[in-house]
Amino acid sequence: MTSTAWQLGCPITLGDNADRVTLAHGEGGRLMRQLIEEHILPRFSGSEASIAPPDAALLQQIEHDLVFTIDSFVVSPLFFPGGDIGQLSVIGTVNDLAVAGAQPLWISLSLIIEEGLPIPVLDCILDSAAAAARETGVRIVAGDTKVVPSSTADGLFITTSGIGRALAPTPLGPETLEPGDELIVTGPIGRHGIAILVAREQLGLTPPPETDCTSLIDPVKQLRDAGLLAVTNNVVRAMRDATRGGVTAVFHEWAQACGHTLSILEPAIPVTPDVRGAAELLGLDPLHIACEGTMVVAVKSGSGDEVVEALRKSHVSQQATVIGVVKKRGVSPVTTQRTLGQELPLDEPSGAMLPRIC
Amino acid sequence: MTSTAWQLGCPITLGDNADRVTLAHGEGGRLMRQLIEEHILPRFSGSEASIAPPDAALLQQIEHDLVFTIDSFVVSPLFFPGGDIGQLSVIGTVNDLAVAGAQPLWISLSLIIEEGLPIPVLDCILDSAAAAARETGVRIVAGDTKVVPSSTADGLFITTSGIGRALAPTPLGPETLEPGDELIVTGPIGRHGIAILVAREQLGLTPPPETDCTSLIDPVKQLRDAGLLAVTNNVVRAMRDATRGGVTAVFHEWAQACGHTLSILEPAIPVTPDVRGAAELLGLDPLHIACEGTMVVAVKSGSGDEVVEALRKSHVSQQATVIGVVKKRGVSPVTTQRTLGQELPLDEPSGAMLPRIC
Repeated sequence: MTSTAWQLGCPITLGDNADRVTLAHGEGGRLMRQLIEEHILPRFSGSEASIAPPDAALLQQIEHDLVFTIDSFVVSPLFFPGGDIGQLSVIGTVNDLAVAGAQPLWISLSLIIEEGLPIPVLDCILDSAAAAARETGVRIVAGDTKVVPSSTADGLFITTSGIGRALAPTPLGPETLEPGDELIVTGPIGRHGIAILVAREQLGLTPPPETDCTSLIDPVKQLRDAGLLAVTNNVVRAMRDATRGGVTAVFHEWAQACGHTLSILEPAIPVTPDVRGAAELLGLDPLHIACEGTMVVAVKSGSGDEVVEALRKSHVSQQATVIGVVKKRGVSPVTTQRTLGQELPLDEPSGAMLPRIC
Repeated sequence: MTSTAWQLGCPITLGDNADRVTLAHGEGGRLMRQLIEEHILPRFSGSEASIAPPDAALLQQIEHDLVFTIDSFVVSPLFFPGGDIGQLSVIGTVNDLAVAGAQPLWISLSLIIEEGLPIPVLDCILDSAAAAARETGVRIVAGDTKVVPSSTADGLFITTSGIGRALAPTPLGPETLEPGDELIVTGPIGRHGIAILVAREQLGLTPPPETDCTSLIDPVKQLRDAGLLAVTNNVVRAMRDATRGGVTAVFHEWAQACGHTLSILEPAIPVTPDVRGAAELLGLDPLHIACEGTMVVAVKSGSGDEVVEALRKSHVSQQATVIGVVKKRGVSPVTTQRTLGQELPLDEPSGAMLPRIC
């Protein structure tokens, strides 16, 4: 094993002779069947989370349109303050479904394991995935396991695909954004990316910044319950969990879709002191840093306060706040406005400053 | 790049300054958006195969139960005689749905790319995936792209997840197998695994053995058209594409499910001369070697000939043949019977002799 992707932050102590995953576990024979039957299936069985042993799961017809999504998780390290790759791989896909306006139902989960990963570490990660599935009410119904030779993958990659029941209405779409529309964030930004960076670079901050990785099902439910995402009254233009690229990446995508300028009031953005401190230390702007349990919402002009009030009923989005407005397209697609009113372009990063945060 | 996973067998010639995938392409910023908009979306657009730009695809309600599956593909090399990882990743998931008795409809596709992969190589692989989707009538509707640093993944891993419409009836299930039931294979076995091994080990056989990688939709359709997989007359106990672990792995799983012995008549097994030769050279038994377009079918006693006749109407399964029967459980769960009648146990390999064939 060339890396310490699984060692850093690993919450379990391993004996010298811990069982490890070998290439043999990936080859369709007895060892693979044992790994699946002894370590994987039991964790995903039960009323809320169960998995079908064959290659494909048979699922009951649902009386709605479907939402379908997929995400690969290559986060390094595998364990970080507040979470691990197992939890993240389930929550990430649950959130993609939730912000698309769907009720998450089923997940399929595929493992690419680097030869040498200790089996107790795998167990621990699968426990996290199962717990996240139980907490969010989704069932992990199908899976796959591949093992690749040492140094051809970095510990463990997990891909999850999710199916949700589309609830009417879904958000109107970022192409419908109009000048005057309000931009909301559901909580402090940048927490996930900073937690990963501090853990990976072993910066030794005390206490270590924690990921915000959590399900966004409840905040979206609050919007429906308040009648703000309803067939008769849909004020929600767009919702998106601000993952890779952070709030900046989402706003640039939306600005491109609608052709207007999205203007952020910088002092309004919620940032925790630990994220602010670490970001300054690292020379990063929290607006570029990933969240995993925080979303941005664009709503019709005049409905910002109502939406914020509804969101604050969820403990996940207690700190929801309006952070900006849509304006007629100026010189830049996304701008930030400082305290004294100066409006500056917020460039879309080309990429690469924060590799492997999810 | 530590390996030649993409170089071996690559059908395109690259200039010295071919564009390559960088970490920046995976970070949610402008470069990632360009990669997706310029290289991925155009390949999957059109009437039969289209992809939705946001993180989740909205799909129309279907009036059937669903079948859901996932598979990761880590094959090495990425290109091999008769196919590549792009085609394989679509066909593999299509076949998992087809043998579960479903009509494959939608696929989501996630890329884990090693930094340094030339973009023209990625283009070529995505073209193959799109072509396989068109040929099998599935639509690639959602995707994800991650990039990991050089030497933390081996060129490219692809995970596909598929949704199919469950057609009634589905196979009865391997637990319903009874003594007297007949075991059928739809064509020569071991072709995919041998093609990969010969390519990877650069054994230089001429012509090089080709993979059998192809869709099993038509053979399954022939069974339905012949009224053998019908609500009023379902003779199909189980169907499975014999991938990792080959026919042996499937038969061991079925033997465990039903508690009987599956007995193979060795002289009846179709094996092409090139696979037989290469397998002998490598000291392998074709029964253990993966197929990617060949399935085994267990059918009720007395219906073997009818099923074979129906299967032979498809060009994919022209060489379908009965290769064994189910017997009362003897000493071994799976046996092979040689020409002179001697019955030998066919052990389930523990694994590992053929890593990374899919």
